[in-house]
Amino acid sequence: MADPRFFTRAGPFRIDELAKVIGASLQDPSRAEVMLEDVMPLTDAGTGHLSFIDNRKYVGAFRTTKATAVIASSELIDQAPDGAALLVAEDPYRAYALAAVAFYPTPPVTPEIAETAVIADDAAVDPLAAVKDGAVIGADAQLGARTVVEANVVIGPGVRIGQDCRIGANAVLRNCILDDRVILHSGVSVGQDGFGFAPGPQGHLKVPQLGRVIIESDVEIGANTTIDRGAGPDTVIGAGSKLDNLVQIAHNVRIGRGCIIVSQVGISGSTHIGDFVMIGGQAGLTGHLTIGDGAKIAAQSGVMRDVPPGATVGGSPAKNMREWLKETAVLGKLAKT
Amino acid sequence: MADPRFFTRAGPFRIDELAKVIGASLQDPSRAEVMLEDVMPLTDAGTGHLSFIDNRKYVGAFRTTKATAVIASSELIDQAPDGAALLVAEDPYRAYALAAVAFYPTPPVTPEIAETAVIADDAAVDPLAAVKDGAVIGADAQLGARTVVEANVVIGPGVRIGQDCRIGANAVLRNCILDDRVILHSGVSVGQDGFGFAPGPQGHLKVPQLGRVIIESDVEIGANTTIDRGAGPDTVIGAGSKLDNLVQIAHNVRIGRGCIIVSQVGISGSTHIGDFVMIGGQAGLTGHLTIGDGAKIAAQSGVMRDVPPGATVGGSPAKNMREWLKETAVLGKLAKT
Amino acid sequence: MADPRFFTRAGPFRIDELAKVIGASLQDPSRAEVMLEDVMPLTDAGTGHLSFIDNRKYVGAFRTTKATAVIASSELIDQAPDGAALLVAEDPYRAYALAAVAFYPTPPVTPEIAETAVIADDAAVDPLAAVKDGAVIGADAQLGARTVVEANVVIGPGVRIGQDCRIGANAVLRNCILDDRVILHSGVSVGQDGFGFAPGPQGHLKVPQLGRVIIESDVEIGANTTIDRGAGPDTVIGAGSKLDNLVQIAHNVRIGRGCIIVSQVGISGSTHIGDFVMIGGQAGLTGHLTIGDGAKIAAQSGVMRDVPPGATVGGSPAKNMREWLKETAVLGKLAKT
Repeated sequence: MADPRFFTRAGPFRIDELAKVIGASLQDPSRAEVMLEDVMPLTDAGTGHLSFIDNRKYVGAFRTTKATAVIASSELIDQAPDGAALLVAEDPYRAYALAAVAFYPTPPVTPEIAETAVIADDAAVDPLAAVKDGAVIGADAQLGARTVVEANVVIGPGVRIGQDCRIGANAVLRNCILDDRVILHSGVSVGQDGFGFAPGPQGHLKVPQLGRVIIESDVEIGANTTIDRGAGPDTVIGAGSKLDNLVQIAHNVRIGRGCIIVSQVGISGSTHIGDFVMIGGQAGLTGHLTIGDGAKIAAQSGVMRDVPPGATVGGSPAKNMREWLKETAVLGKLAKT
Repeated sequence: MADPRFFTRAGPFRIDELAKVIGASLQDPSRAEVMLEDVMPLTDAGTGHLSFIDNRKYVGAFRTTKATAVIASSELIDQAPDGAALLVAEDPYRAYALAAVAFYPTPPVTPEIAETAVIADDAAVDPLAAVKDGAVIGADAQLGARTVVEANVVIGPGVRIGQDCRIGANAVLRNCILDDRVILHSGVSVGQDGFGFAPGPQGHLKVPQLGRVIIESDVEIGANTTIDRGAGPDTVIGAGSKLDNLVQIAHNVRIGRGCIIVSQVGISGSTHIGDFVMIGGQAGLTGHLTIGDGAKIAAQSGVMRDVPPGATVGGSPAKNMREWLKETAVLGKLAKT
Repeated sequence: MADPRFFTRAGPFRIDELAKVIGASLQDPSRAEVMLEDVMPLTDAGTGHLSFIDNRKYVGAFRTTKATAVIASSELIDQAPDGAALLVAEDPYRAYALAAVAFYPTPPVTPEIAETAVIADDAAVDPLAAVKDGAVIGADAQLGARTVVEANVVIGPGVRIGQDCRIGANAVLRNCILDDRVILHSGVSVGQDGFGFAPGPQGHLKVPQLGRVIIESDVEIGANTTIDRGAGPDTVIGAGSKLDNLVQIAHNVRIGRGCIIVSQVGISGSTHIGDFVMIGGQAGLTGHLTIGDGAKIAAQSGVMRDVPPGATVGGSPAKNMREWLKETAVLGKLAKT
């Protein structure tokens, strides 16, 4: 089970009831009364445990798991070990996520203003919010209900944070507006000046950065990620987008809804990204680009041109994925002859 | 206008007076009494607004802007919309920067020692400096006049910080000396041990890092950037150089004057960089290199050899830019045939 | 000498006694009574100074150094300047490290609980530990003897930290267990949720991250590096491994013993890395890979397949180093013809 020093478990649950909660169907209805006590990876699971498989790479572990129950897709159930109760789901990973939430629900927020927190007199902190030790909240800032500001966070003047947000320890927020259910992990830095200089041999002149950062609902932003505020327009992170750790978002960038941006990606100024775009780790995008809805950008790509909706690109400079793979193959052959 | 929760506007200004301040000339002197109230991007601007164009990509927006006045270069003024007063400048971006400073001047520093700041008895904080909540300042540290240390910053013993500096929230400084007008954004970490180990199968032996970090005047360093102190020699960031977010500077690196180093660049130990060098985002430089004055290094380059003064390089491993572009083109053709 | 505002020097030492401490042999025994006062780089060294050479690139500086004594390998001693006393060592860098430790020993930890630190009632802080200003230590956390928690660090509930650890300022630790002699530099973020979502057009569902981060003894982790906790299994950093600044370690990653991972490397989820693996700066590894013991991964590599023990790979996508170099050479030739 998850380490009880860090996690509190709920349950046990009857498998048929859990099946309803997670949107899966129990393959063998005669097993409806099986009790499940916990979720566990295939290789560690035993009696009372629920596991899942969503990657063919782990079929070996699936075949030999001792889990009482496993969530699997219909394509993989013929690989199931004898004795395991099967929960068949279209998206086993999603079903597992819901099961994990059932066993380990997020505890409700206990309203609190820590004694050592420093809150400006005219800041508006909802009575249901929690502000932890050493957090500093500036003049005229606003925090919504059930929002948690962890220890030593610094929130600048005028910042708006909606309901049910979680601001990780040591994060810094200024010149920004957050909607509801936004999660910022620790060390995130939002709203600082963008990298705007009018360069010149007699010195680079700093250009005032007069925009904001707008973070829409259900966004999650990874640890130590940096998001600069706009230079004039705003920097915008669209609803439901998820950014990993150590990502860099420059001024005036607009990210659409439901994007997935993996760790260490860098997006240069004024680039606009559509909805449901996926960007692999360490990819870099130059400035002033337009990336279409549903585009996929491979890890470590160097994107220097617009990407049409739905396209997949890779390489540096990035090109159509098929072209890039062909180039890679051709070069490999040439080097061998 | 810029969100008044975050910015305080000055003005309005007569266009002829503003022209002098920003070093531009009013194309039509009969418009000298036009009043300007704010700066605004081309697409959002309306009556009373000053905008600018410095990138041909936005000529369409220029032609249709409703701005009362626009700063443009002489090459672009024939694209100007009817009715807009034109301010002609050699470097429109620089002129805009000066206008933006006029409308949104940096407020003067209010001297302050926050009640929850912790300052060592023998630290020397200038009476005109400001130290915000939760900041911790070590023994024998020094802060100059009008320097601002934001909330929850940690400054180690012996650190020297000059006048008119701004140290962003949650930054950490140790074993370093800062000249005047240095800006460190939030989460910057300066002066920690460099990555120095004498490797060996029986364990990697930590090598004491006995140097410092020297940051000269007018340097700006982006959020969550890391600068290791020297191993014996110092790590030096030269006057007027600008580093973006999430940059890594290793021990003993020397950066000259007026360099521009974009986000997520990594510079390995003991590499020396000349004056006015530009390094694109995510480029990496190995250790013990010499990069000549005025060199340009493209984004995502992997630099493994010295770069002569004035040269432009790209690719990984990096080579002369023209060679790299040719290689890219040749490979593209090969893959098509 | 090292700046006395930041470092306190011990010594002087007789060269023959220092030779024993650092495992070197004095080439000319008649010099046994030479006194050494400090370590210093070759170019800055003078009377009373000990320097070292371990890189042929610096032979010029070696020939002309004014150092009283130099540590060198037997291969380089014929390049030595007249008059310098030579300390011959198999690994001059390691010998230098030991000499530097002799001159600049780490001061002993002074036990302390700062007045402004906030420590949960049921946290167990060893009486020999030090907790600095503004640090926040959660319920049921444990700190071992001589462990130092620097200013404004945030340690979550239940975290275990062993003996002789050093947690840098503004670091954040949660859901993790640290063995002895672990060094985390400032701004490190350990134990936050991994980047786990079940993606879908109706929104990406957050997957509970139920594992921990285990950091074994003698690990060092660079500034602003991020280490996500496991999703179910733990994320593990093996004994004696050294991670540089701004590295990203995703959930379920396992790193073996004695690895060296240079700045800005990113390792994706569930990848397992053997013992004594070296990974160059800015390299990226995709998820679910196995990297064998002793493998070497070049800087900026994009590793998408398993790497066998002892192999050296480079390029993106990464391949056998020799193949990659050959491809690079072939392409260069093609572009020239």
